Amino acid sequence: MIRVGVNGYGTIGKRVADAVDSQPDMELVGVAKTQPNFEAHTAVERGYDMYAAIPDRAPLFAEAGVEIAGVVDELVADADIIVDCTPSGIGAENKSLYESHDTPAIFQGGEDADVAEVSFNARANFDECVGADYARVVSCNTTGLSRVIAPLEEAYGVEKVRATLVRRGGDPAQNSRGPINDILPNPIEIPSHHGPDVQTIFPNLDIDTLGLKVPATLMHVHSLNVTLESDVTAAHVRQLLEDEGRVYVIPEGLGIDGAGKLKDFALDAGRPRGDLWENCVWGESIAVEGRDMYLFQAIHQESDVIPENVDAVRAMMDAADKAESMARTDEHVGIGIEGDPAGFSREDDHVEAELADD
Amino acid sequence: MIRVGVNGYGTIGKRVADAVDSQPDMELVGVAKTQPNFEAHTAVERGYDMYAAIPDRAPLFAEAGVEIAGVVDELVADADIIVDCTPSGIGAENKSLYESHDTPAIFQGGEDADVAEVSFNARANFDECVGADYARVVSCNTTGLSRVIAPLEEAYGVEKVRATLVRRGGDPAQNSRGPINDILPNPIEIPSHHGPDVQTIFPNLDIDTLGLKVPATLMHVHSLNVTLESDVTAAHVRQLLEDEGRVYVIPEGLGIDGAGKLKDFALDAGRPRGDLWENCVWGESIAVEGRDMYLFQAIHQESDVIPENVDAVRAMMDAADKAESMARTDEHVGIGIEGDPAGFSREDDHVEAELADD
Repeated sequence: MIRVGVNGYGTIGKRVADAVDSQPDMELVGVAKTQPNFEAHTAVERGYDMYAAIPDRAPLFAEAGVEIAGVVDELVADADIIVDCTPSGIGAENKSLYESHDTPAIFQGGEDADVAEVSFNARANFDECVGADYARVVSCNTTGLSRVIAPLEEAYGVEKVRATLVRRGGDPAQNSRGPINDILPNPIEIPSHHGPDVQTIFPNLDIDTLGLKVPATLMHVHSLNVTLESDVTAAHVRQLLEDEGRVYVIPEGLGIDGAGKLKDFALDAGRPRGDLWENCVWGESIAVEGRDMYLFQAIHQESDVIPENVDAVRAMMDAADKAESMARTDEHVGIGIEGDPAGFSREDDHVEAELADD
Repeated sequence: MIRVGVNGYGTIGKRVADAVDSQPDMELVGVAKTQPNFEAHTAVERGYDMYAAIPDRAPLFAEAGVEIAGVVDELVADADIIVDCTPSGIGAENKSLYESHDTPAIFQGGEDADVAEVSFNARANFDECVGADYARVVSCNTTGLSRVIAPLEEAYGVEKVRATLVRRGGDPAQNSRGPINDILPNPIEIPSHHGPDVQTIFPNLDIDTLGLKVPATLMHVHSLNVTLESDVTAAHVRQLLEDEGRVYVIPEGLGIDGAGKLKDFALDAGRPRGDLWENCVWGESIAVEGRDMYLFQAIHQESDVIPENVDAVRAMMDAADKAESMARTDEHVGIGIEGDPAGFSREDDHVEAELADD
């Protein structure tokens, strides 16, 4: 059993904790949090040991009726490995804490790449992370790009990637973020920083990215162009992506025209929090013009990196190889299981149906 | 066993079907739907018998790989009672179908009140619906108002109600609705039609309502003023509302400052679809000035009427009295159960805690 601690219990941390808790070869030692808000109460309901991330605030937890098992130092000392899910920039500040306890740690994509010796995406570079003391799971957008670039590179060769990332302004609960009524080139400088981040996974990849932010909260949407090194058909690309466990090719006929219906679909299927761990690629959007492949994909910023964090734990602990770890993660997180939305992508039922609102 | 059919399987229908299916004294005969979109696939995954709401479209279901048990006429003929969850106006058109089969039916609040002999809210007028052939479960907003007016009327007497309803523009998946960047007086005429709708439940109530629409999707928020007939304290009103099974008084200290975090809270707790079946009243908002009581409450438009539909079935079938039906509905739908957000409202842990983002 790998004993895992989670430092930071917000949008990503609470999902990583649940995913770790569901793995038969892992034990969730506990979670560290800065304040006893609603998420702390839910953690207690789930039986997770709570640690105060800021020792001075420990009394606040007691006042809130949230029993704590200790402070974050004790969690770091007690765990075999820490998954740091604190806000961007705080992870780097925490590194000395992990070093002082000789505890390996996983950081999130909000940190600079140099926070760790390796940046990680399970599908693309699992083996580079084996035995590492510090790794960084790349951002939701970089994860989403890596999952389609890896199979395309292997199957066809990639000459160049051009991607426009239309990003949500904030998560549904982040009511202090914007924009609330604008379409922001963000960053305005082209190419954006996202391309170089993808190159932390594919060092020799030729990629240019452009970023925007819009008044939406549910998911990001990528407009992706990949110039391939060989001539292929859209049908062949589609089959290639449908064979990827962490890519959900949305079948025609389901009437899923955006992120809202994608989330409803996941919620109807009973997925925890309505999470969409896979890239969601619109099947009918996959097009090939000469050697230029195009597609639209939606990326759930709150959850697509969760299975990657679980795999990073196994890679760093050298507890399983890539195929074994990804299969185990998917099975216990719930990706592609019976009655699950992704389950549909395994079938191939494409239909033209009238889709007026019910 | 009461054999229930659900006609219309959209936002409300799919939730009513799940709620009926969870009741030990009810059997879900099947659901009728107009088209085989993603919701139809999920219904099949759940083992619900699917009926074509528009016979001509039956072939579309076969093409989509959705097996149908028949057409809506057969569902109506076979069921003891139908819950009509079709869009506003379609319910009234369907009434002749129900009459032709002598099948009692429940309509939703989108229909005019005269579609049925009685308008229904379990807390306020359960008994008036006993044995009725046709009833109308009032709208999400009227349901939310009725649940607080009823206990206030019983405990203190109500002189007058004034309510401003700040309504969401559309549901999360309704991407064709607006406003996308405005604050619309809607309707502009004051008072709005919502007050008369509340009077279908409380015929002698003096109530004025004002409606607005804003660019939000998650929930409605009510700014409520009730002038009481007796002098009370805010603490007494708060305790009164905390004792209501379908009112969740949000404790201070949880850091729940809006609908986004309310939904996260429900999703974290594992509630189906993150539904909030109860009125969500901000505890610290409850104020009393003289005989004027004020509060803010959030109303989840997709789910607050669901338990009411289940109770309406029992009332019309005379299968249980009010207290027994509401308790059974809440238990099997999952309101106030252990580890559930509403469970917190039963405890009384109010805390002042710093609530910076994690």
